[in-house]
Amino acid sequence: MSKRILVIHGPNLNLLGQRQVEIYGKFTLDEVNDSLADLAKELGLEVETVQLNGEGDIVETIQKAKNQFDAILINPGAYTHYSVAIHDALESVKLPAVEVHISNIYSREEFRHKSVIAPIAVGQISGFGPDSYLLGLRAISGMLKRA
Amino acid sequence: MSKRILVIHGPNLNLLGQRQVEIYGKFTLDEVNDSLADLAKELGLEVETVQLNGEGDIVETIQKAKNQFDAILINPGAYTHYSVAIHDALESVKLPAVEVHISNIYSREEFRHKSVIAPIAVGQISGFGPDSYLLGLRAISGMLKRA
Amino acid sequence: MSKRILVIHGPNLNLLGQRQVEIYGKFTLDEVNDSLADLAKELGLEVETVQLNGEGDIVETIQKAKNQFDAILINPGAYTHYSVAIHDALESVKLPAVEVHISNIYSREEFRHKSVIAPIAVGQISGFGPDSYLLGLRAISGMLKRA
Amino acid sequence: MSKRILVIHGPNLNLLGQRQVEIYGKFTLDEVNDSLADLAKELGLEVETVQLNGEGDIVETIQKAKNQFDAILINPGAYTHYSVAIHDALESVKLPAVEVHISNIYSREEFRHKSVIAPIAVGQISGFGPDSYLLGLRAISGMLKRA
Amino acid sequence: MSKRILVIHGPNLNLLGQRQVEIYGKFTLDEVNDSLADLAKELGLEVETVQLNGEGDIVETIQKAKNQFDAILINPGAYTHYSVAIHDALESVKLPAVEVHISNIYSREEFRHKSVIAPIAVGQISGFGPDSYLLGLRAISGMLKRA
Amino acid sequence: MSKRILVIHGPNLNLLGQRQVEIYGKFTLDEVNDSLADLAKELGLEVETVQLNGEGDIVETIQKAKNQFDAILINPGAYTHYSVAIHDALESVKLPAVEVHISNIYSREEFRHKSVIAPIAVGQISGFGPDSYLLGLRAISGMLKRA
Amino acid sequence: MSKRILVIHGPNLNLLGQRQVEIYGKFTLDEVNDSLADLAKELGLEVETVQLNGEGDIVETIQKAKNQFDAILINPGAYTHYSVAIHDALESVKLPAVEVHISNIYSREEFRHKSVIAPIAVGQISGFGPDSYLLGLRAISGMLKRA
Amino acid sequence: MSKRILVIHGPNLNLLGQRQVEIYGKFTLDEVNDSLADLAKELGLEVETVQLNGEGDIVETIQKAKNQFDAILINPGAYTHYSVAIHDALESVKLPAVEVHISNIYSREEFRHKSVIAPIAVGQISGFGPDSYLLGLRAISGMLKRA
Amino acid sequence: MSKRILVIHGPNLNLLGQRQVEIYGKFTLDEVNDSLADLAKELGLEVETVQLNGEGDIVETIQKAKNQFDAILINPGAYTHYSVAIHDALESVKLPAVEVHISNIYSREEFRHKSVIAPIAVGQISGFGPDSYLLGLRAISGMLKRA
Amino acid sequence: MSKRILVIHGPNLNLLGQRQVEIYGKFTLDEVNDSLADLAKELGLEVETVQLNGEGDIVETIQKAKNQFDAILINPGAYTHYSVAIHDALESVKLPAVEVHISNIYSREEFRHKSVIAPIAVGQISGFGPDSYLLGLRAISGMLKRA
Amino acid sequence: MSKRILVIHGPNLNLLGQRQVEIYGKFTLDEVNDSLADLAKELGLEVETVQLNGEGDIVETIQKAKNQFDAILINPGAYTHYSVAIHDALESVKLPAVEVHISNIYSREEFRHKSVIAPIAVGQISGFGPDSYLLGLRAISGMLKRA
Amino acid sequence: MSKRILVIHGPNLNLLGQRQVEIYGKFTLDEVNDSLADLAKELGLEVETVQLNGEGDIVETIQKAKNQFDAILINPGAYTHYSVAIHDALESVKLPAVEVHISNIYSREEFRHKSVIAPIAVGQISGFGPDSYLLGLRAISGMLKRA
Repeated sequence: MSKRILVIHGPNLNLLGQRQVEIYGKFTLDEVNDSLADLAKELGLEVETVQLNGEGDIVETIQKAKNQFDAILINPGAYTHYSVAIHDALESVKLPAVEVHISNIYSREEFRHKSVIAPIAVGQISGFGPDSYLLGLRAISGMLKRA
Repeated sequence: MSKRILVIHGPNLNLLGQRQVEIYGKFTLDEVNDSLADLAKELGLEVETVQLNGEGDIVETIQKAKNQFDAILINPGAYTHYSVAIHDALESVKLPAVEVHISNIYSREEFRHKSVIAPIAVGQISGFGPDSYLLGLRAISGMLKRA
Repeated sequence: MSKRILVIHGPNLNLLGQRQVEIYGKFTLDEVNDSLADLAKELGLEVETVQLNGEGDIVETIQKAKNQFDAILINPGAYTHYSVAIHDALESVKLPAVEVHISNIYSREEFRHKSVIAPIAVGQISGFGPDSYLLGLRAISGMLKRA
Repeated sequence: MSKRILVIHGPNLNLLGQRQVEIYGKFTLDEVNDSLADLAKELGLEVETVQLNGEGDIVETIQKAKNQFDAILINPGAYTHYSVAIHDALESVKLPAVEVHISNIYSREEFRHKSVIAPIAVGQISGFGPDSYLLGLRAISGMLKRA
Repeated sequence: MSKRILVIHGPNLNLLGQRQVEIYGKFTLDEVNDSLADLAKELGLEVETVQLNGEGDIVETIQKAKNQFDAILINPGAYTHYSVAIHDALESVKLPAVEVHISNIYSREEFRHKSVIAPIAVGQISGFGPDSYLLGLRAISGMLKRA
Repeated sequence: MSKRILVIHGPNLNLLGQRQVEIYGKFTLDEVNDSLADLAKELGLEVETVQLNGEGDIVETIQKAKNQFDAILINPGAYTHYSVAIHDALESVKLPAVEVHISNIYSREEFRHKSVIAPIAVGQISGFGPDSYLLGLRAISGMLKRA
Repeated sequence: MSKRILVIHGPNLNLLGQRQVEIYGKFTLDEVNDSLADLAKELGLEVETVQLNGEGDIVETIQKAKNQFDAILINPGAYTHYSVAIHDALESVKLPAVEVHISNIYSREEFRHKSVIAPIAVGQISGFGPDSYLLGLRAISGMLKRA
Repeated sequence: MSKRILVIHGPNLNLLGQRQVEIYGKFTLDEVNDSLADLAKELGLEVETVQLNGEGDIVETIQKAKNQFDAILINPGAYTHYSVAIHDALESVKLPAVEVHISNIYSREEFRHKSVIAPIAVGQISGFGPDSYLLGLRAISGMLKRA
Repeated sequence: MSKRILVIHGPNLNLLGQRQVEIYGKFTLDEVNDSLADLAKELGLEVETVQLNGEGDIVETIQKAKNQFDAILINPGAYTHYSVAIHDALESVKLPAVEVHISNIYSREEFRHKSVIAPIAVGQISGFGPDSYLLGLRAISGMLKRA
Repeated sequence: MSKRILVIHGPNLNLLGQRQVEIYGKFTLDEVNDSLADLAKELGLEVETVQLNGEGDIVETIQKAKNQFDAILINPGAYTHYSVAIHDALESVKLPAVEVHISNIYSREEFRHKSVIAPIAVGQISGFGPDSYLLGLRAISGMLKRA
Repeated sequence: MSKRILVIHGPNLNLLGQRQVEIYGKFTLDEVNDSLADLAKELGLEVETVQLNGEGDIVETIQKAKNQFDAILINPGAYTHYSVAIHDALESVKLPAVEVHISNIYSREEFRHKSVIAPIAVGQISGFGPDSYLLGLRAISGMLKRA
Repeated sequence: MSKRILVIHGPNLNLLGQRQVEIYGKFTLDEVNDSLADLAKELGLEVETVQLNGEGDIVETIQKAKNQFDAILINPGAYTHYSVAIHDALESVKLPAVEVHISNIYSREEFRHKSVIAPIAVGQISGFGPDSYLLGLRAISGMLKRA
């Protein structure tokens, strides 16, 4: 049976394609999700994607993933920098999680350089536009194969 | 056609008039909203007001304002000091935003001196009780006239 | 008439018993709530318990407690470390609040050492597993008797 | 008898209209003062305006205002960020003071984010170009009416 | 045979009832000790109490407790904030220790917010007046029962 | 011939007796100067007093003191906390200087705890109301006798 | 003609497979290089790999890459955290660079959390063992295709 | 009846005259005490002097002073910089305390610039050699007269 | 027509030759000005020199330079480290400015290591005694030739 | 006559062999003292050893060493990190002092990385178990021979 | 015999003219060296120039300069900000050294504001493009004449 | 067979005897190496010594030591304070390492107080001149005997 991956897009990512195009690019969230679906098929994985703006909603989505998914691919958006609640949710469910960012958070404002999520993620991918997600999915695919 | 302004009252502002009266005064949120409506009429503007306690709800309200309003007047309450998500929502929708505070945040606890919203607001007004809102509406009115 | 206490369990506490057992122990949230009910009966108090993952939801629950409860027992979970909104809600409703933690937050990661809730709580109890809640309820019982 | 307001323009504000036009705009200090005079008339206030580059001169002007003015509207310019002497002068004369800034000091260099004046001002208005002054005058007008 | 608990009152606690009554309350140390004795009896524990002003004396008292007591209840007073020597003594003797504070140290001066003792204590109880000690004793009682 | 002492009162000290009476007391600067004159006579010293609000004026007054005075008694007021220019002036003229403060600067706002003048003063006296000046004059008298 | 990628392995990476196996895994650098060669072939790229322990040697290797390669894949090892010289070399040659790390640098010692290279890299990939390199190569492949 | 003053010399002050003569001068502690006695007689005060090296001993000496002395003159020596226990003892007994230092602590090592005692002292005198004590006694004399 | 350079000597530089000779050397300000005049002649420039102790006076002198000079050579003295007002004046007049220091500010006290002027100067020259001025004049000469 | 060395063991070192054996090892303090005695004999030195838990007691022991010993070998234990009083005692008696630590203080908790004693010690030896003392004694022996 | 000056160009300076032209200008290192040679001839000095990318190579080049050169002119490039090794080499050989920078390091990224070299240099020149080197050579020429 | 020890002297240590004699003493590196050889013979060890100025060279020398030596004695010189690369090399080869310093790094400039090497060394010896090396060799000898 194929492994199931939950993809969580954090706050404001529903505005992709409309929001700060010079930083985030012109592609939309649907296009990202389509690419993910295509790559998932290629890699023999199932992906389910969700976009959420509320911190508590992300926490609950992670909690519910526990017995339904094998890994989580998450772009925590602005919550990257302060949401200990999401950190704790990921730590609690013990699913391997990969953190991705569309922009290079280390070449932006100082307050975006720190991720409170990264310490409990398997790894972090930052700066490759929509490809950050695809690379993240490949990272998960590799991990699950070896596990 | 008259310009439309969305007024967002952040967390705990529904308690105005009951909450720490020595800091926030005795007026209620309804009274603030009535004053705003009166002044809007005088300035030839339309205002819509909303009070929200959830960070994600504020993010989504800002997102939806995009094609329906010409500017945002926001008192982010406690979220002023840490909500990068609200910062990003305001930055994403590209509506001019004015940040207001009832109390003077610079004469209160150290942790209230920093606003993560201010850098993307047009400007900030702090310390004038309910008048902070009215001054904010005037500020928007001036801006929109000149734009 | 017996005093009424609202017990608020913050984010991820619904996972008790499944989550990081080496830190949080094997007991479940239901068991904690049962113990609280038993002790409440013994102390002549009424308790109502609620578990919430959303910051805004906790804020609103605190606001609504105002005329229905005599005190609040809260484990703010991850929000302990940054939720000024919950701090402000507690400060606004003026109900005596006791902050409890299952684990000893001072022997964990640096970022867990700071509580933004503690300055407006009556007191804080940290490190005694499920007993932290029971001790917190006793603390409230003592306070209410003396008041 | 109408209330009297002293408007103090701090260092380098005499260069308005010539100085960093992209930040401060094209209007001159005379134009600001004219607008203030017009609005004062409308609000039934008297304003007197003065521009000073010296810290000690501002201190003395504030001291002399004590029995001649009912409130102070001040743009402390660069002194905003370090002049404890101006802070102390304002605190000593006990006149209500409103601090205004033409630019949004929170979206400029880090060293402009801190105001040593704000803690003893009634409130602060920042970012609305010449309107900051007009909003400040209205803020004072409101204050004096309620007092 | 009943478990034995050593209660250590740190510097200046002998002045309870005379010292800063608005912070520490009117009860005396003898009254605290009597309440502890009463509760100990109820819980089937033996308590011995000691008040010490010297850091070295507290260190030595902890060292000697090693084979004579089953747990330590300590209010380290001012030493809470810097005594690595007491920290090390507690760590060395390997007796479970509970740290208590009469006042809520987190709502007082900044320098009282940090405890160098807490990281090696089982837990900390702060802010409940003399009840902090009683809650601490109950905490120990619970611990010892489960151990 | 009797030794000559220059007494410099920094910014806002001309308001003594009117300014924040709870901190600075009810005595006026003239009264302070009279007391200084009386004590000087008793100690066989000559004093000249000056009050200045401008940093540059204080710098120049110190420079001119060089060949006319044997020591300087200075209350730098707000400049205590940042005026490197006054620090350098005192260091340059090589006259022994004593720094005095009416209030206890260490029990006030954090920003008043640091003196940039103290490192080049002979000593500092803080907290004794108008007596701080008199003690400072005695300190100078002792120094000059021993020199 | 196929694009050419220079892969730079920084200090101590020649010890892969022997060094802290619990952190870096059991694979050797040769195995990493072989995997990179395989993937390069698949992606239609040419890769050249080099391992260097000296900061100056890495600087010079980057400089020489300027006209011979289309992109750089670099694991700067320990130099990640302080080598402004490597930062400047990468900035100077204007080749797109991708920074990779075998371990998750954000879950290790504090001093490993900061990268001085990341701000001028296109992006960063951290935490996926040898797959970090393969993902990095894919990231470059995607970039070059779109450019 | 004459007022009684307790003079406390902190750690290492018994070595005066032998210790770092370039900083502390050649006079001995006995000579300081003799001068204090002489001045006390002149001022109509009684002084009792004590030198103590132990923090706990100083705490207890302060506690016992409560009903026997009218004020405390203290040179806390090295404890100046960290003894919250002495701070608390002085705060508890509510006797007016004057803090003195022989050397100018603000022109020495950085760690000597901070006094944890000063915030609860009436005032501080630093830098005048043995005269610091005499000035301190005069400060107390003045205070007690006015009280 | 020859280019005109305004040379501003900041606070306490009038004391050159008398002040801390071991740091600033034995030459006087007149000698510096004579050397500048000689070199100016050689370089075909006109120089005008002024020494000012007041921050506001320096601000105004810079403002007036706007249409009368082609560049500014400034030794801001102590104001180097905190005068945002001088920074703003230089930024406002848009004349190229060169900052010079007689002593090497980086080998002196920590507080002299930071210049708030340098970020808006063309460049900074520090440590060469009176030659710092001459090198600064040459730097300006080169700049103006190329412009 | 042979040189005399005072060996001071600070707080909690009497627990050696029982305390945190994984850090401090299984040897007892008596065994350390015996080894020191043996090595002293070999080196032609006399050693006297003392273990003290009180800061004031250590201060006084150092003071009394002045005319009786030629050097001090000290393991200040927890006081290493904050006892300015011990620092001052060592500085006052002017005996050469060597600081030793059984464990490597730089690989333990952050708060153990700083020694306030080291700046006035001749040198520091840390991390070699009981050998740290023996190496310290050899260091003293070498120093005394050369002096 | 003419004095000999060693000019050291640090890492990445060989890329001058190709690298970030907007910051470093279009001139090449050869052109800088030619200008230096011309000016040296004019000043009666001999210069030898070298460009090095390795920190150790710069250290060794400085060491070897000891008996062959009379002064060092160094642009340490990126090593300016962290190379204590170069600092120590310069301090060890005791040759007067002048530090130069092409760009104004104080108007660039925060991490470029600190020089670890400056404290042991005679002086620093920053911001004048290739003229920084020529001014540096003149600074050395002046120094050597006076020595 | 006798154990083999690699002694690494870091940057600028080849200048011993010529460099800052007041800090490092008059002995040369050859004399240090001779003393080490003598002591090694006495202890039944073999030592090989090397002096290297390049960070990368030290890294490689450590790497090659892996199968040829039993322990490393290293004076990392200036690299002590920032070379994570040397830290990682030592950590990778898993040879026991002892860090030595000729001068007491804790009584010198602030930036020399921190060692990035110490956390992975067995221990550190600092301040005993050339004896630091001999004590370090003895420390290794003891370690190897016990191992």
